[in-house]
Amino acid sequence: MVKRIKRKERDQLTAKDNSTLNPYTPPVARVRPGETVAVETWDAYGGVVSPTQSFQEAAEKGLVGALNPVTGPIYVEGAEPGDTLVVEILGIDLPEWGAASIIPGFGALEGWLNLMTPRTKVCAIRDGVVLYEADHGRVLEVPVDPFIGTIGVSPAHEAIQTLAPGPHGGNMDCPDVKPGNRLSLPVFQRGALFGLGDVHAVQGDGEICGTAIEVEATVKLRFSVEHRATAWPRVESASEVMTVCSARPLEDAARLAYRELIRWMTEHGWDRDDAYMFLSQAAKARVAQIVDPLYTVVAKLDKRYLRG
Amino acid sequence: MVKRIKRKERDQLTAKDNSTLNPYTPPVARVRPGETVAVETWDAYGGVVSPTQSFQEAAEKGLVGALNPVTGPIYVEGAEPGDTLVVEILGIDLPEWGAASIIPGFGALEGWLNLMTPRTKVCAIRDGVVLYEADHGRVLEVPVDPFIGTIGVSPAHEAIQTLAPGPHGGNMDCPDVKPGNRLSLPVFQRGALFGLGDVHAVQGDGEICGTAIEVEATVKLRFSVEHRATAWPRVESASEVMTVCSARPLEDAARLAYRELIRWMTEHGWDRDDAYMFLSQAAKARVAQIVDPLYTVVAKLDKRYLRG
Amino acid sequence: MVKRIKRKERDQLTAKDNSTLNPYTPPVARVRPGETVAVETWDAYGGVVSPTQSFQEAAEKGLVGALNPVTGPIYVEGAEPGDTLVVEILGIDLPEWGAASIIPGFGALEGWLNLMTPRTKVCAIRDGVVLYEADHGRVLEVPVDPFIGTIGVSPAHEAIQTLAPGPHGGNMDCPDVKPGNRLSLPVFQRGALFGLGDVHAVQGDGEICGTAIEVEATVKLRFSVEHRATAWPRVESASEVMTVCSARPLEDAARLAYRELIRWMTEHGWDRDDAYMFLSQAAKARVAQIVDPLYTVVAKLDKRYLRG
Amino acid sequence: MVKRIKRKERDQLTAKDNSTLNPYTPPVARVRPGETVAVETWDAYGGVVSPTQSFQEAAEKGLVGALNPVTGPIYVEGAEPGDTLVVEILGIDLPEWGAASIIPGFGALEGWLNLMTPRTKVCAIRDGVVLYEADHGRVLEVPVDPFIGTIGVSPAHEAIQTLAPGPHGGNMDCPDVKPGNRLSLPVFQRGALFGLGDVHAVQGDGEICGTAIEVEATVKLRFSVEHRATAWPRVESASEVMTVCSARPLEDAARLAYRELIRWMTEHGWDRDDAYMFLSQAAKARVAQIVDPLYTVVAKLDKRYLRG
Repeated sequence: MVKRIKRKERDQLTAKDNSTLNPYTPPVARVRPGETVAVETWDAYGGVVSPTQSFQEAAEKGLVGALNPVTGPIYVEGAEPGDTLVVEILGIDLPEWGAASIIPGFGALEGWLNLMTPRTKVCAIRDGVVLYEADHGRVLEVPVDPFIGTIGVSPAHEAIQTLAPGPHGGNMDCPDVKPGNRLSLPVFQRGALFGLGDVHAVQGDGEICGTAIEVEATVKLRFSVEHRATAWPRVESASEVMTVCSARPLEDAARLAYRELIRWMTEHGWDRDDAYMFLSQAAKARVAQIVDPLYTVVAKLDKRYLRG
Repeated sequence: MVKRIKRKERDQLTAKDNSTLNPYTPPVARVRPGETVAVETWDAYGGVVSPTQSFQEAAEKGLVGALNPVTGPIYVEGAEPGDTLVVEILGIDLPEWGAASIIPGFGALEGWLNLMTPRTKVCAIRDGVVLYEADHGRVLEVPVDPFIGTIGVSPAHEAIQTLAPGPHGGNMDCPDVKPGNRLSLPVFQRGALFGLGDVHAVQGDGEICGTAIEVEATVKLRFSVEHRATAWPRVESASEVMTVCSARPLEDAARLAYRELIRWMTEHGWDRDDAYMFLSQAAKARVAQIVDPLYTVVAKLDKRYLRG
Repeated sequence: MVKRIKRKERDQLTAKDNSTLNPYTPPVARVRPGETVAVETWDAYGGVVSPTQSFQEAAEKGLVGALNPVTGPIYVEGAEPGDTLVVEILGIDLPEWGAASIIPGFGALEGWLNLMTPRTKVCAIRDGVVLYEADHGRVLEVPVDPFIGTIGVSPAHEAIQTLAPGPHGGNMDCPDVKPGNRLSLPVFQRGALFGLGDVHAVQGDGEICGTAIEVEATVKLRFSVEHRATAWPRVESASEVMTVCSARPLEDAARLAYRELIRWMTEHGWDRDDAYMFLSQAAKARVAQIVDPLYTVVAKLDKRYLRG
Repeated sequence: MVKRIKRKERDQLTAKDNSTLNPYTPPVARVRPGETVAVETWDAYGGVVSPTQSFQEAAEKGLVGALNPVTGPIYVEGAEPGDTLVVEILGIDLPEWGAASIIPGFGALEGWLNLMTPRTKVCAIRDGVVLYEADHGRVLEVPVDPFIGTIGVSPAHEAIQTLAPGPHGGNMDCPDVKPGNRLSLPVFQRGALFGLGDVHAVQGDGEICGTAIEVEATVKLRFSVEHRATAWPRVESASEVMTVCSARPLEDAARLAYRELIRWMTEHGWDRDDAYMFLSQAAKARVAQIVDPLYTVVAKLDKRYLRG
């Protein structure tokens, strides 16, 4: 049986409770390790965009409220500061449409392209593809590859805006946080105080215009708690281990991610400098996003190389 | 018939002629568009590393001469400033070993890991795999994926060290510059004055310790000249179009690469802002390297999305 | 008459209340605009360093508690979100010693110099100079130039660690926040919820080892509230207007500070692009610090140029 | 007696010889250590701007030739690779006007302000002030503080464009390279192959719009050669020692400059880590420019602190 965690009504979302990951907001749900939960999430726009209303129109009408809202905090039984919270992503139910937007003042090329007009493009999602109607008339079929853009726990003392990523997770916009994979997060608060939202039907590396195909969704998850410490988010797929680190400039995010991957390898018997040299031959890296307050890089290693 | 372009003897390599791409060195060979050439290249160490001599030992003996030497300049008939030189990479013959090194003062985590000891690891290359003997005893088989690390043309007025990448190509360390793919480069000098070297049997994204499995090799190429301008290196594979840009910090390399990719799309009928938004959904990006004087990012788009 | 705002006892300091600027901690004092207050502050070490105890020793004994603690929140009557809080710095009473420290993992050259040993140097402060006993034996007299390192208001929804600077002020480590000058801060919460600490007897540009001559102090202030919005902290001295902005990489902090200074000029009748061109001839800039989570640049203009 | 080194006629300037510092161009003059020389220089526009012709107009007429041209190479007798060239700046004769410009695609806030229109502002220089006629009508008097923007030697093997700064000097845009001060540069070529140009009547920190009050000028210099190595440019005034380093991002320029300053201190008896800690209390820093291919920071220390 699956426990359902409902999202708040749109007009109940608040910037304080839903646009930060924080230790101050009382939990909205409690889950036990091993339990399967289905969590309803809002899209990054906070639910104000629709096939008949662009983000710009919503902004002009004063409708924009809590940005990038998360559903949470979810209290995970048994999680204590210093532990690691493991989140298995079991599935994501997508809706029938999602929307990308260009928002002036936001985006990787904002200053570089000049004169960008705000726009929202609503795309139908059907039969496993996003239907992107290009301005030149063609309808492009982009296969869905859904993942959770914002997912994390409460920091130790800070309340961090959900637009930002960090060691606590948050707005990593990492396409590898997807069904079939396991995400590990450090725990800073009793109960972890977990939250998530900002599901993307698909996203390109870098998320360069600042938005992906933003959707509301229902996410199926299972939690477990491990009594070991983790410094930064880690992801495991069937074939790869991955570290997800965020910083500015982008090379520092990459350095952090590689350093964490080296640490992971040394936990499995590798010599540190040898791991460093080996990653120089065998690592993969993904630029998750270069649009949020910190930029995110994912460093990856094929699992067959992990063990010493 | 294949025209062979021999490399210089090791003791004939000079920093001036072989460790820069420049308009001052007389061509060592001339080729015609359409002709197939096989070019011999030295490894990035300039030939001083062997199974019995580490880079450190060579340095202590004072043997290190021209670093990252290129074979060239090769004069391509018909290439004029403002043209585009297209280089088809037809094949790379690998030798029986290659070597990675940690060189103090060089590498992406140099300051972050402290106290790195210099080391060179020589790896056998056999049956399509690099045999990496890890310090913990296992021998890891890493499939070869050979490519040309340094490849470029003479700049307009500058002599640029072969350790650096830029609009002229150079030390891009881009694993997509490999057999089966086509590289386009801007032409700044009559004859293009092309050079290449620094072949890698395989390399991880980022080339984080500063070296890949460095090899000497023979590279088979075919040139053509197109009478149109190119701003930055572009690569085409059977399935993807790619732009290869270099800058610091790393996000600027990414911004440049995406901007070039948008430009490429507009050449095929895309609206600029629409291309920007679409890449936010469908682009891929590779961190080629974060160790050279400028860092390199490759932005990619599936070809089926290119045409408007 | 001066109203005294006492600091908490050292063992009453908490990370939650004193190592963040936040909207969650109840005010410890209320002040009226125009009232003069004398605020007691702890040093950045949270009071654990003394002439007989280095930071390292305190850390080994487990004594390190709330880092970079602020005294506050101080509720300023009449301050409303959207207003500007103006803080006149009337004076700073210094103690008889202060202490600089090198803390592994922290500091601008941390990775660049390798092998740094932790150390704390306690310096006497006497007759307006800091007496710095160099390892080579000389005692150098560095004139004091005291200022408030960490000073700010509560953010809108976040709780931001006091180690970080931002639009809300915080750990700007800006030597111009000193007696005789006025600091303007945006107000995000009713009452502003102001806090301060981290006084420095003197500091070099960049604060490169991560610490200045850190002191506990008593700071005399007077507040006023203006019903206009401010985007980033601004400082006014008798002769200059200054903007204080924080970002990474450092050039983005500089760009923000210059953009704010241009904005300030346009408020006084300058054409925007003309202001931009004029600052290219007449601006001064200070690198406040390159060691905190965001780096801080101060851009300055002589007041006689301000008015159009 | 002063030896005069004339500049080339404007139409004799070439990008190859005058817009790079390089080992390939034959010297235009030879000087002996101790000899006083007066060098004529062109402005950064290459002489195409005048009170009746903006840079934009010159560009539209196709008149723009060698950008940021240097007078040189000047061969300094006795200078050998590994030596240090010391350049005493004895005086700068300014003309009666100079010109600042906004050039689209260039400048620190180029992408941040959008839609910048090109413009050139010609300013009279009289009685020690630059007369800046602001758009709002006031004429602002900015005291002249003339210095040499581009000054350097030939690199070892590269030809580096004069728009770029580096260890060889080049386009540092450092206002401390001015009359009364001494500049030390590393020597890479026999004769040093020195060049200079790009004098500024005055410049703000950062040179944010990309240009200062650009002038042609006559610069009086005296050279000496020291048989010791220098890694990066150093400046000495009557009261301060300064290091001038260039990199991207800007914090790396600052780190380099501080590291060089620490090195300078250790040459005078300081312990390295103690020097690091002391600079954290007593250093000054100037952002020279954030508009060229590498950004430049000047780190400074009062001379009375230098000796151990």
